[in-house]
Amino acid sequence: MKQMKTEKTLQQMLSDYKNEVESALDRAVSLSDCRQKEVIEAMRYSLLGGGKRLRAVLVLEFARLGGIDPVLAMPAACAIEMIHAYSLIHDDLPCMDDDDMRRGKPSCHIRYGEATALLAGDGLLTAAFQTLAKAAQSLPAQRVLDCVSVLSEAAGYQGMIGGQVIDLAGIDKESMEEMYRMKTGALLRASCVMGCLLAGRRDLVETAEQYAENLGLAFQIVDDILDVTGDPALLGKPVGSDADNEKKTSVTLYSMEKAKEMADRYTAEARCRLEQLGADGFLQELTDSLLNRLQ
Amino acid sequence: MKQMKTEKTLQQMLSDYKNEVESALDRAVSLSDCRQKEVIEAMRYSLLGGGKRLRAVLVLEFARLGGIDPVLAMPAACAIEMIHAYSLIHDDLPCMDDDDMRRGKPSCHIRYGEATALLAGDGLLTAAFQTLAKAAQSLPAQRVLDCVSVLSEAAGYQGMIGGQVIDLAGIDKESMEEMYRMKTGALLRASCVMGCLLAGRRDLVETAEQYAENLGLAFQIVDDILDVTGDPALLGKPVGSDADNEKKTSVTLYSMEKAKEMADRYTAEARCRLEQLGADGFLQELTDSLLNRLQ
Repeated sequence: MKQMKTEKTLQQMLSDYKNEVESALDRAVSLSDCRQKEVIEAMRYSLLGGGKRLRAVLVLEFARLGGIDPVLAMPAACAIEMIHAYSLIHDDLPCMDDDDMRRGKPSCHIRYGEATALLAGDGLLTAAFQTLAKAAQSLPAQRVLDCVSVLSEAAGYQGMIGGQVIDLAGIDKESMEEMYRMKTGALLRASCVMGCLLAGRRDLVETAEQYAENLGLAFQIVDDILDVTGDPALLGKPVGSDADNEKKTSVTLYSMEKAKEMADRYTAEARCRLEQLGADGFLQELTDSLLNRLQ
Repeated sequence: MKQMKTEKTLQQMLSDYKNEVESALDRAVSLSDCRQKEVIEAMRYSLLGGGKRLRAVLVLEFARLGGIDPVLAMPAACAIEMIHAYSLIHDDLPCMDDDDMRRGKPSCHIRYGEATALLAGDGLLTAAFQTLAKAAQSLPAQRVLDCVSVLSEAAGYQGMIGGQVIDLAGIDKESMEEMYRMKTGALLRASCVMGCLLAGRRDLVETAEQYAENLGLAFQIVDDILDVTGDPALLGKPVGSDADNEKKTSVTLYSMEKAKEMADRYTAEARCRLEQLGADGFLQELTDSLLNRLQ
């Protein structure tokens, strides 16, 4: 992986990262692997070509912050994107959110049918661990195994799946923050922690977790705000969908003013943790860009 | 784990193993772990209290054959049972086989609803890797990580999921054996291989794979035969369901005579591999008991 040059803009650096992650994912789930093309096509349909790759970038950047070449953490970066992609496929199924569209194209079950979409999700969840294990080709097995524990806990019933259960049941003020922490926060936390662990820097884990925790909460609340005030052209998606779905969010449960206050508080806390970690320009800029979408 | 005494009968030994696996699984997915009780209840509903635990027993016995205390392989034994349980939950869903009953009780989605059943399956698949990673508390991390690779490949699109895809598409003579190898064979193979790997006995892996391969094919074909000729009282399930569902099996694709011939051939091959491995009485008896159900 090329050393990031400081004269590059944030967008250029993100785009470089995104391209490298994209081609690693493309190699990780390959059509030549098996004769059951249909399920692999469905996996690739949902895995490739979309999304900001924020989770992958966090893995790679925290590995770099920990002092190793980020390319060594690429298997973990791919793994977390696979978990994210599987969760979106299963989330969109008729028995869950029943969403026909995802990122401007038909969701996986609309394109391939429910059975294949279910299996594609299962396949991506399984492939995540298979891909992660490959990090041990260049790093100590114990570090990689620690990542297996972190990723499975974050993705499982103590993390993301637990958050989906709260979400399905419907949130109130009391459970909102817990749901945000689990449903989206858990994977962001796992991204940062895996980067540290792969670099052999257990000493960074606690602060990295606090950074990710606050980043996740701020990010989610900013999303809630943008769904009310955002410009659809800039966002690349329609606004007002939360209100249309009578979805409870930080804005409807509290108020626009209070939500902005919360986003500010979590943002400040995230920035503070990043300083403690001694993170250089890129992570600072990335964090600012995610949280400053309101301006 | 208590040393198996030779004077115990096969059934007593299997029952001892089953109890130990059952209580390890009970501890591995615990209701005290999280406030999202519903999904954990659904996971436990499908994971506990049922099945022969054949896959777990194979992990433990191959660990013993490899020279380590089988209790050290218990996390891997639990992991494979979790994968098996998840696959049954997702298989039973309306978009797949749409089965309302499983092992004499309502299937998971009938009892808990589709959304919770979907998440419970996802949760068990994820928990499998979390549980497996715990084997490194007493064994070298590299051996455990090798098991992560083996298990994820066996469960994924190159293995069990690939088999489900062939099954959904419908089998013919050409694809039948491949489907059996992938859908049921892959997990049996992973069970035996993980036992060897955890014991640090890579030298046994190839023969263990051949044993498992033949065991799986023989087992599946014996199932096909029993669905036609079996005694429902002895089997504990109705017979004739394959014919009712117009399901293609080794019996319908070939003939009863040819299916019996195939079962005999694979059985003989499995026994032969077991001798090569120098397996003692228990594994021999277990294999015979699984394959001699026709008599």
